[in-house]
Amino acid sequence: MPRFRLTIEYDGTPYVGWQRQENGPSVQGAVEKAILSLTGETVSIRGAGRTDSGVHALGQVAHADLSRNWAPHQLRNALNAHLAMAGEMVAVLDARAADDSFDARFSALRRHYLYRIVDRPARLALDANRAWWVPRRLDHEAMHAAAQMLVGKHDFTTFRAAQCQANSPVRTIDRLDVTRNGDVIEIRATAQSFLHNQIRSFTGTLKLVGDGKWTPDDVKAALDARDRKACGPVAPPDGLYFMQVDYPE
Amino acid sequence: MPRFRLTIEYDGTPYVGWQRQENGPSVQGAVEKAILSLTGETVSIRGAGRTDSGVHALGQVAHADLSRNWAPHQLRNALNAHLAMAGEMVAVLDARAADDSFDARFSALRRHYLYRIVDRPARLALDANRAWWVPRRLDHEAMHAAAQMLVGKHDFTTFRAAQCQANSPVRTIDRLDVTRNGDVIEIRATAQSFLHNQIRSFTGTLKLVGDGKWTPDDVKAALDARDRKACGPVAPPDGLYFMQVDYPE
Repeated sequence: MPRFRLTIEYDGTPYVGWQRQENGPSVQGAVEKAILSLTGETVSIRGAGRTDSGVHALGQVAHADLSRNWAPHQLRNALNAHLAMAGEMVAVLDARAADDSFDARFSALRRHYLYRIVDRPARLALDANRAWWVPRRLDHEAMHAAAQMLVGKHDFTTFRAAQCQANSPVRTIDRLDVTRNGDVIEIRATAQSFLHNQIRSFTGTLKLVGDGKWTPDDVKAALDARDRKACGPVAPPDGLYFMQVDYPE
Repeated sequence: MPRFRLTIEYDGTPYVGWQRQENGPSVQGAVEKAILSLTGETVSIRGAGRTDSGVHALGQVAHADLSRNWAPHQLRNALNAHLAMAGEMVAVLDARAADDSFDARFSALRRHYLYRIVDRPARLALDANRAWWVPRRLDHEAMHAAAQMLVGKHDFTTFRAAQCQANSPVRTIDRLDVTRNGDVIEIRATAQSFLHNQIRSFTGTLKLVGDGKWTPDDVKAALDARDRKACGPVAPPDGLYFMQVDYPE
């Protein structure tokens, strides 16, 4: 069966997350329903990242095996038409033919995420559900310095959700940069793969540094503790965006 | 009574527009209700621009006369708390004391608007209601060239809604720039004041140029016609943002 690689954008607000679940609408389910209404085929697609409820994506990637050899742009347009009819907050940005060996999850070399904090006294209007509102001014330079303690290969038990299903808590963080543009603080994270809630755990912990409550050394100590209880409060999903997946080719 | 100048952000999607109306919730009404619940005072505020339903603002300005001499940051925070309790998509970014002679509408020297087009084959997800989706590739350079026909002092009868209440169709457009950043085309417009639907009329007409259906000279001819029927289809409100108002000081 022809395999297709889909690049997907979504507003995660109305969904229980990427993954199909019993308890509500999922992004995966929305795309699978669009495939069903287009092709009549009940297909299970696999995504590169299982984003949580409320987490957004500009570049989630999934693969799907279909019986017909669609022209990629027709597949993209037809899926978008069905997503629109269903009122989904999901768009297929790109569809392309993929090799049978391509697996959206297991072929991924690197995943890129962005976390947006809006750091201003006033509540959010246009950025409601699209960013974490932090009214008190954060020291983004201290946050960046602390973030560098987390770059590299470490046991990230501290920054991993209790329900994380990964076999190992060891991951290699390639990049964790904190920058400010006016009122917006952006945290950009890159790794081959992340643990469940890892970036939101990083962000909540780095916010303690931005607040002046923790030093960068406290972040290092929390990492070294390898203890979930040493983590700062997990940041809300609203600010997290799954940006891009890199594959060999 | 102490006068205050408020800078206001909103998502225009759920509102009938800035102005209080009988037929649904308005942004003006949301702010006036927040003032009422905070102070017990029924106040009529005046905004710098009467944005239509679905039009957004990052920097609408309004003035309000209150009986108490509030510390500006306390007024801002309290109004935001009441807007949040009411579930409004409105934020007071800034409050400051203003002179009695300050009038948000009549003191304005210049108004700045942005119109966002997302020019890509895929439907919008994160930008739904936040931009105009144009699936076919537009020639933004031709649009910019055509836009320059509209800069300066002209009779803009062609680009004015039938229900426009201004005494004169003559306006002076200081700036009308069309730029592209990837899939996003931004139209930035500056004038002391605009006619009703003027920027959306400009945008819908410039899109005909981007499509290759009209030349810049056709835009000039439409302007010279001074005839509403010569205007292109008015662009949807979703892409329009009221960005900033300049005042003397």
